[in-house]
Amino acid sequence: MTSAATADWHAEIERAAQRLDAHRGAYLRETPLWKLSPAAFGLPATPGVEIWLKLEHLQVAGSFKARGMMNRLLANDIPSSGVVVASGGNAGIATAAAAHALGVRCEVFLPSVSPEAKRARLRALGAEVTVVGEAYADALAACLTRQRESGALLTHAYDQPEVVAGAGTLGREIEQQGGVPDSVLVSVGGGGLIGGLAGWFGPRSRVVALEPERAPTLFRAREAGEPVDVTVGGVAADSLGAKRIGSIAWEITQREVRDALLLDDDAIRAAQLWLWKEMKLAVEPAAALPLAALQTGAYVPSEGEKVCLIVCGANLDPAGLA
Amino acid sequence: MTSAATADWHAEIERAAQRLDAHRGAYLRETPLWKLSPAAFGLPATPGVEIWLKLEHLQVAGSFKARGMMNRLLANDIPSSGVVVASGGNAGIATAAAAHALGVRCEVFLPSVSPEAKRARLRALGAEVTVVGEAYADALAACLTRQRESGALLTHAYDQPEVVAGAGTLGREIEQQGGVPDSVLVSVGGGGLIGGLAGWFGPRSRVVALEPERAPTLFRAREAGEPVDVTVGGVAADSLGAKRIGSIAWEITQREVRDALLLDDDAIRAAQLWLWKEMKLAVEPAAALPLAALQTGAYVPSEGEKVCLIVCGANLDPAGLA
Ligand SMILES: Cc1ncc(COP(=O)(O)O)c(C=O)c1O
Ligand SMILES: Cc1ncc(COP(=O)(O)O)c(C=O)c1O
Repeated sequence: MTSAATADWHAEIERAAQRLDAHRGAYLRETPLWKLSPAAFGLPATPGVEIWLKLEHLQVAGSFKARGMMNRLLANDIPSSGVVVASGGNAGIATAAAAHALGVRCEVFLPSVSPEAKRARLRALGAEVTVVGEAYADALAACLTRQRESGALLTHAYDQPEVVAGAGTLGREIEQQGGVPDSVLVSVGGGGLIGGLAGWFGPRSRVVALEPERAPTLFRAREAGEPVDVTVGGVAADSLGAKRIGSIAWEITQREVRDALLLDDDAIRAAQLWLWKEMKLAVEPAAALPLAALQTGAYVPSEGEKVCLIVCGANLDPAGLA
Repeated sequence: MTSAATADWHAEIERAAQRLDAHRGAYLRETPLWKLSPAAFGLPATPGVEIWLKLEHLQVAGSFKARGMMNRLLANDIPSSGVVVASGGNAGIATAAAAHALGVRCEVFLPSVSPEAKRARLRALGAEVTVVGEAYADALAACLTRQRESGALLTHAYDQPEVVAGAGTLGREIEQQGGVPDSVLVSVGGGGLIGGLAGWFGPRSRVVALEPERAPTLFRAREAGEPVDVTVGGVAADSLGAKRIGSIAWEITQREVRDALLLDDDAIRAAQLWLWKEMKLAVEPAAALPLAALQTGAYVPSEGEKVCLIVCGANLDPAGLA
């Protein structure tokens, strides 16, 4: 289904939502959709403009990733060897939390550079943490080897259909709560999130891709005409630091996404601090790109436009907000 | 109107809501009401129980106080000498923010023990900060003297009808968003918040008063049969540290509130940390009492009960959550 058309994605996301619905409550949450006026953000008062915040950072495990990982686990038979993943970030945490909720084994591969705080967090979720090699590539290689040996189910942070469809349930939830927004501003790492949203809304909504200047996977792919490796860094690298846009996201965004914008680290950080100071939303940098796009004027809504900002994650050290 | 019946409070809150509606947007926000299951909080799955979180810590200036202070300012003619208040906490911040939004002068009286961070915050909102005396009583005395001399409008943190009615608009908003909850769990300092909520819901909802063991203004008043001074301290003293229950709150709660529960500091702090760790809600201790009541079993919902927790404020140093 990796080269499926929009209609197929819509159906696949519907199926994901049915699967996930059974786990609402303890595991998954319907997160709030908050409708505000431009004035609430200090933005010019264009008539009829509404700014919607989808507070998905309040999702289980602190990011939208919980949807995709749970869908991946529910859509497949899980062998007794459990699930394996190579990620200390939101994808790893969401995989561990989903495995924990379903009572299956979870092994997470991390390189020696990974901070102890992340390992502890994963262990607290019941995951077995294997530290191997020096860089993420080494941990990934070890993870793939283990998967081949043990037959465990591998979860990928963004480039698996179930993961993209799970992220797509976020779009479905927004529509159920507030209708179809005219535009959706969303940050992009490997592209699972934007793939799911564009797969759900299709041509009904203008989905705008936002990336840090220092982690421009989709932007560079569009310049090159195909996915290419990029050098990543900057304030949001933790979450948006995929090296290359995923093949599924590439396929969907080529068809559905017209705009890909870059934002600099200062604008991202300023929007993150603004969200804390003025709105008491404690979010990680990746979640601040949509507001940064509005506050810098990189994206300017038209009269009457209903703009939905995806507030995608809150895995951060709160001390950094002070 | 301080000894008004329930029907009068309902009408007064309606009037407050009309006044405040005109300032929605830049100044006031309709905050999200989030409906969850007990399982989302690790609570036993009693059939039909719903836990509603009213995310009022996302209100302008970080607490419900914005409603009451704005209502106080809008309901009165403001002289050229502006408004005066003696509070470095949420009431002072909300007064300064409301005055700023309306473009009127605001003078805040604080004692020398007040932290520089609070003064800076108030100055950033355009307030003139006068530091006088060593204790809050000294600052209050100076504030009252200034008020008599200049004729400025005084705002009180909880014991003015407009302030209570403003807080009551929170109840009206909950009802509009989600219907009437069976019970409302709310923390009490001087009682403006509970007065407004009980004034709005009246006998339609069971409003439960929650106080820290170390700041039991309503609890002790009920024991004594009248408002009495109490010694205050503990983790929530910043916000719930009124010395005595307000006369308006006393009058309303005697009629409308059956339950007043005490919680210890460890339970409050544990609930505050839980809200951050598991739900990514960064709130101050005062806002954690409702969850603490559920998590300690001090309050146990019955089958089918819809329980609304008032998440009332987020003025905190986020570093304290790490
Ligand atoms: C908080 C947050 N936002 C955005 C992203 C980007 O998602 P994707 O890699 O699916 O583009 C991630 C990925 O980890 C994330 O954790
Ligand atoms: C966050 C917060 N919660 C609760 C209260 C208690 O409100 P009241 O004094 O109206 O009882 C206050 C008072 O300042 C507060 O700031």
